[in-house]
Amino acid sequence: METNLTEVYLDNSATTRCSERAKDLMVKVLMEDYGNPSSLHMKGVEAENYIKEAKKKIAKTLKVDEKEILFTSGGTESNNTALIGAALANKRAGNHIITTSIEHASVSAVTGYLEELGFRVTYLKVDADGIISLDELREAVCEDTILVSMMMVNNEIGAVEPIEEAIKVIKEKNPNTLVHVDAIQAYGKYRIFPKKLGIDMLSVSGHKIHAPKGTGFLFIKDKTKVKPLIYGGGQQKGMRSGTENVPGVAALGEAAEEIYENFEEKIDHLYQIKQRFVEGVLKIEGVSVNGKTGRDSAPQIVSVSIDGVRSEVMLHTLEDRKIYVSAGSACSSNKPSVSHTLTNIGLKGSLLDSTIRFSFSVHTTEEEIDYALEVMNEVVPKLRRYTRK
Amino acid sequence: METNLTEVYLDNSATTRCSERAKDLMVKVLMEDYGNPSSLHMKGVEAENYIKEAKKKIAKTLKVDEKEILFTSGGTESNNTALIGAALANKRAGNHIITTSIEHASVSAVTGYLEELGFRVTYLKVDADGIISLDELREAVCEDTILVSMMMVNNEIGAVEPIEEAIKVIKEKNPNTLVHVDAIQAYGKYRIFPKKLGIDMLSVSGHKIHAPKGTGFLFIKDKTKVKPLIYGGGQQKGMRSGTENVPGVAALGEAAEEIYENFEEKIDHLYQIKQRFVEGVLKIEGVSVNGKTGRDSAPQIVSVSIDGVRSEVMLHTLEDRKIYVSAGSACSSNKPSVSHTLTNIGLKGSLLDSTIRFSFSVHTTEEEIDYALEVMNEVVPKLRRYTRK
Repeated sequence: METNLTEVYLDNSATTRCSERAKDLMVKVLMEDYGNPSSLHMKGVEAENYIKEAKKKIAKTLKVDEKEILFTSGGTESNNTALIGAALANKRAGNHIITTSIEHASVSAVTGYLEELGFRVTYLKVDADGIISLDELREAVCEDTILVSMMMVNNEIGAVEPIEEAIKVIKEKNPNTLVHVDAIQAYGKYRIFPKKLGIDMLSVSGHKIHAPKGTGFLFIKDKTKVKPLIYGGGQQKGMRSGTENVPGVAALGEAAEEIYENFEEKIDHLYQIKQRFVEGVLKIEGVSVNGKTGRDSAPQIVSVSIDGVRSEVMLHTLEDRKIYVSAGSACSSNKPSVSHTLTNIGLKGSLLDSTIRFSFSVHTTEEEIDYALEVMNEVVPKLRRYTRK
Repeated sequence: METNLTEVYLDNSATTRCSERAKDLMVKVLMEDYGNPSSLHMKGVEAENYIKEAKKKIAKTLKVDEKEILFTSGGTESNNTALIGAALANKRAGNHIITTSIEHASVSAVTGYLEELGFRVTYLKVDADGIISLDELREAVCEDTILVSMMMVNNEIGAVEPIEEAIKVIKEKNPNTLVHVDAIQAYGKYRIFPKKLGIDMLSVSGHKIHAPKGTGFLFIKDKTKVKPLIYGGGQQKGMRSGTENVPGVAALGEAAEEIYENFEEKIDHLYQIKQRFVEGVLKIEGVSVNGKTGRDSAPQIVSVSIDGVRSEVMLHTLEDRKIYVSAGSACSSNKPSVSHTLTNIGLKGSLLDSTIRFSFSVHTTEEEIDYALEVMNEVVPKLRRYTRK
């Protein structure tokens, strides 16, 4: 098969290419306006202004107050700060935490750590589409529940949790329970308004929205009690000490602003791409798609199970054709283990190790999708032939 | 006074301009080799290789093993990981920690937090030059001492602590005591060989050595027990979860390699600059320099007290002439308070608020020094006239 495409990057939920605008601003700050925001002179003030400007841009996308944005080194630190910080700050109010059984490791490893510290954690089950049960949630919330942490979009299958309804259920049963939303796969794909939804904390990662790696933020609703994770010079009102990553922060603000420009168009494009891909891939024999696939699923993620073809083999075969995808979750090379999400949606055992994630960005083209489908059509039957039955 | 200089940045201990080489590599990684190191495909492997390469470059400067380098989001996180991580991991061995009374807030605020957690902390006094007493240290180390944390170069006056002798004293009294060195102002100014010195952990910040902000590392000697601060996907062998800041890490490796090229020349240049400045500034009436100033002081820092001129007034007057310096420590805008270092070296009260830090980089020129001295000569007498006696 012939193609002019040099590479087809369909692993955008693992990480994205940095945007030109974000990069340009980053370089300007690195090379010209490189002051330390803590310095009292003009170069410090300039640097501080980049931070303010980034806060303003981000706050606008969420309709929150600028002072409610805490910059971090990424989504994992945002999640850690939210969970550890809120648990330790509120432990006198109770020791129960609720989360789901399909969270990303940056939440599930933290709740594991909190269990070691003596907190009791409830892990909500999900259905075959990866969706939690509001009834189970209602049952779980009690007087002792200080925190519920849920992802908005699951990173492996693109399931979208009923955040709005869930928060109503939680606050009805215990208005003091804090709600943390891991929006790492949702921000930039959905308009999210924490105030309207009743979200107390919301985690975002920069490198999933075309900002540089090493950037992220945590929205913390005003007056929410959270302890810092990192102590020192008192930057960011003492909530996250350390010289601010000004070039990264500036670039993150720029990328956040950019991703929400012509937003509906971008999302429409993503859903069109997704639909084209889903329809095409389902025509291949023995191929199934996990979870929902329409507008009630995330626009950028498709989880594909290929009966009789091991995911690693599939991944490397696609790689040979310059198509880059994930086997299960992005973090698989650190902890090679069976995916929690796929197990929890009840995917049958033989498919657990035969599942590939395709994830798109606003820059993904129909041409790329068609090329990926052509390659899949060609290689899936061949690969299956090599597999032991 | 005429000058062709557009700006004279003498606040390099607060932060530095990013090097061209570091920036170029960063941009390449952001825009081309932007994969997630956890991804199994080629773009992930490429990204992983940047990390390996950076580790190799850094390990070489310290003569340590690559696997002993842990990347962090900066010096503050390095210090937090070292102190909190080692204290929590070793608390069964004892609950006593020793540090000095002139540490940067990224250490002193952490020891404060550890005191809240029940650890007992001894703060060593310093002499008029900012140097600890080995006798006092010997007295302090006991069976219960799990950790000693000392800075190598003080950030405010450039005092150089007797690390080598101190470690001998410590290990003689308690070979199990871990030694953490905050080398944030020392790395890139000294050749530091942790293995030879017996250092167990060593903190470095990227943006003090012309790498981007948001980068840093912690050397952790193999087999040292340290708990992670951040939990998640298990990156960096579980010691620091979260997608690695690959562009930042790559740039940090590049900057580390670069700063140690033609190293003796660079340091000679810094000491020449420093001497020229110290000699010149001491000719101004009522001006004194704090701590040592020769080769037994750090090459990049000069702390100057100007009798009868408030530091903020001095700072802004210099700023009007495009000369950028610090009033006391760099973090002053977050916690406006009297400097611990200046108080602890016994600086007389009237000078505490009349002290300015000049800090140089390898790019600082004689021309810049001469211009700064000319301006000082001109403005100091004028400013003093305005001051109430």
